[in-house]
Amino acid sequence: MCEANAYLKKGDREELILEQVDEVEPFEDGLLLRNIFGVQKIVKAKIQSLALVNHKIILEELPNS
Amino acid sequence: MCEANAYLKKGDREELILEQVDEVEPFEDGLLLRNIFGVQKIVKAKIQSLALVNHKIILEELPNS
Repeated sequence: MCEANAYLKKGDREELILEQVDEVEPFEDGLLLRNIFGVQKIVKAKIQSLALVNHKIILEELPNS
Repeated sequence: MCEANAYLKKGDREELILEQVDEVEPFEDGLLLRNIFGVQKIVKAKIQSLALVNHKIILEELPNS
């Protein structure tokens, strides 16, 4: 399986917010993450970077508008 | 290996721009893609969505500023 873990950047830290993510889609003003178990999470963020061989998706919080 | 193919949305079509992508990073006003063979590509785009089990990264072109 080729899922990755999604981390949200918080300053210098990266906080794990959802493991084994399969799909990431735009949703309202953020993203909808869905993992291989069907667990969904909505975050007000954009995708900053990917490192797929290391199974990492790095998300960056969006400012409140 | 858990790389994915990167496609650039062009209207209704999705154009394959780089296969077996490992890393995607912000670069200037777009993205730097790097695949598992070390081939790099710079695109003026953002990541629109992911479908990792299907090995797809969908990119969306950014308007010229």
